[in-house]
Amino acid sequence: MDKLTIKTLAKELNLSSSTISKALRDSHEISVETKKKVLELARRLDFTPNPFASSLRKKQSKTIAVVIPEVANSFFAQAINGVESVAKEKGYHVMIYLTHENTDNERAILKDFENGRVDGVLMSVSRDTKENDHIKRLFSKDIPIVFFDRVFDDIKTVRVITDDYQSAYKATNHLLDCGCRETLFLSISNDLSIMKSRVAGYQHALSDRHIHFSNKNILNCSTNNQQNYELLKKRLQAKNKPCGVLASIENLSVTVYQLCMDIKLSIPKDLQVISYSNLDTVSILNPPMTTITQPAYEIGKTAASIMVKALDKKKFFLPSENIVIPSELIVRKSTSIK
Amino acid sequence: MDKLTIKTLAKELNLSSSTISKALRDSHEISVETKKKVLELARRLDFTPNPFASSLRKKQSKTIAVVIPEVANSFFAQAINGVESVAKEKGYHVMIYLTHENTDNERAILKDFENGRVDGVLMSVSRDTKENDHIKRLFSKDIPIVFFDRVFDDIKTVRVITDDYQSAYKATNHLLDCGCRETLFLSISNDLSIMKSRVAGYQHALSDRHIHFSNKNILNCSTNNQQNYELLKKRLQAKNKPCGVLASIENLSVTVYQLCMDIKLSIPKDLQVISYSNLDTVSILNPPMTTITQPAYEIGKTAASIMVKALDKKKFFLPSENIVIPSELIVRKSTSIK
Repeated sequence: MDKLTIKTLAKELNLSSSTISKALRDSHEISVETKKKVLELARRLDFTPNPFASSLRKKQSKTIAVVIPEVANSFFAQAINGVESVAKEKGYHVMIYLTHENTDNERAILKDFENGRVDGVLMSVSRDTKENDHIKRLFSKDIPIVFFDRVFDDIKTVRVITDDYQSAYKATNHLLDCGCRETLFLSISNDLSIMKSRVAGYQHALSDRHIHFSNKNILNCSTNNQQNYELLKKRLQAKNKPCGVLASIENLSVTVYQLCMDIKLSIPKDLQVISYSNLDTVSILNPPMTTITQPAYEIGKTAASIMVKALDKKKFFLPSENIVIPSELIVRKSTSIK
Repeated sequence: MDKLTIKTLAKELNLSSSTISKALRDSHEISVETKKKVLELARRLDFTPNPFASSLRKKQSKTIAVVIPEVANSFFAQAINGVESVAKEKGYHVMIYLTHENTDNERAILKDFENGRVDGVLMSVSRDTKENDHIKRLFSKDIPIVFFDRVFDDIKTVRVITDDYQSAYKATNHLLDCGCRETLFLSISNDLSIMKSRVAGYQHALSDRHIHFSNKNILNCSTNNQQNYELLKKRLQAKNKPCGVLASIENLSVTVYQLCMDIKLSIPKDLQVISYSNLDTVSILNPPMTTITQPAYEIGKTAASIMVKALDKKKFFLPSENIVIPSELIVRKSTSIK
């Protein structure tokens, strides 16, 4: 294909180059409908406006927003540290916004960015976000987005993620190697990108060992720890209780440990436990916990580097790309090969 | 004393009421020196400008900044959740800024607020901050500050804290009740308000039991975990090693546990351990850890409530006041009365 220019877009849409250019700059002279058409095509073709045209937009604030579900979570805390390591070096401010896993909060936060408060957004979507128009709107304001960890595949930009599918596949195989046939996957959402991949890896591992998968293998947990505790208690006291658990977030593994202590189930004898976790305390738990440890700091650092490079070049549309940084399965005493 | 008005200030400083009023609004017509004089007197007398005059200042951003040392810390993560619970209800945005325990970062962040980016600042000072002129400067911009946890006593405003002195006194007495005479206090700073109070409580408990206190009872730790590990290792392998440890932040207790595991010291048999900690995992550690648990969520919530009330009333100078919410000593298996 020839090099994309504003002329290409103009020809394709049967509009003047000047209209295209104004639409890309979000000029008030251009109708909302036309802007929408132009931006959709620009995204579809991965069109990057030339720096000079884009530099006409409002002054940079030298600020990057990090939009995440929560901070009481080691993964996000470490990712923020990775982001800040880059931002500080490059002279950017970092502002952290919490969605508390709620789409309405997420929408309100992103809406607030449209006034130019931030130059770019690093984002990990909240667990109940299904529609993503509120995210796409940022493109029309020349505010680039880089996703990390929890992403949307249908939004064209860079996504910095870990190998969710492979790590879950590997962890499940380890549980099976430990002699578990009845296993339970603790999920937190049916919609989140990371959950879909992790469940797929889990299912694939079962299928490769000719173990039947049913919906009963997935326990859907909420943000309410007490509720999760009760749900899990019911399953672990049932007749055909699982002998192995794969927790998809660290918070759930704390509930599993607490419950096992309370109902006197011995880990790993009665229940083998693996969790996605970046907790500092995993090796001093009773017993030390087998984890899938994510490269949280690296993920934050990489996302921030890409953002800062894009902003410095005034490149507001990033190509659609997945950058995958692998996680590590670290076997400790909460699983044991019999 | 009569009700304070702008006239009182004018008389006291031998200036016109209009000059005082302009100085309080940070008008460019007034010299920096005069503004400083007026603000100093206003603070000393706890003067609150009337809402009408103050409402002339720039538009509210409906945003509260939370300035904290780090997020990879359960205390601050829970405090943020407390702040957000209030902010959300009252229609304020919350932005989180991390100083990484560095005064230069703190200074740069606060400087950035002077342009009206935020309406008010909730702040916990970083461990190496000694001078506080950069904090006081915010008053001259009509940006109120509420301190929480780590405070400055010489800055007139509200401070929401826990009972650092009493809780350390109580914890030390518990260590002594467990039969420890040789104890070690793990500190992170000689300057921080909370450290001074906690050390004083520790010292007082020793003195009440006629136990000699020397500088050897305090181990000064840094932000470098590996360095702390080595320092601590040296002390716990020395001839006259302590039999009890009081860790002033949760992070240090993780190092203590890790080290004991590595050098095969049994907790509590060889070493009794208490820590200030809000970690979710304290009860599933090996062994479960005795903690001083701080009311982190309540502290954040209270600080935010005070701020929101002040902002709604356009009250930019808050009276000097300590609001103390007590911590709780929760005895678990890392200490044991012999």
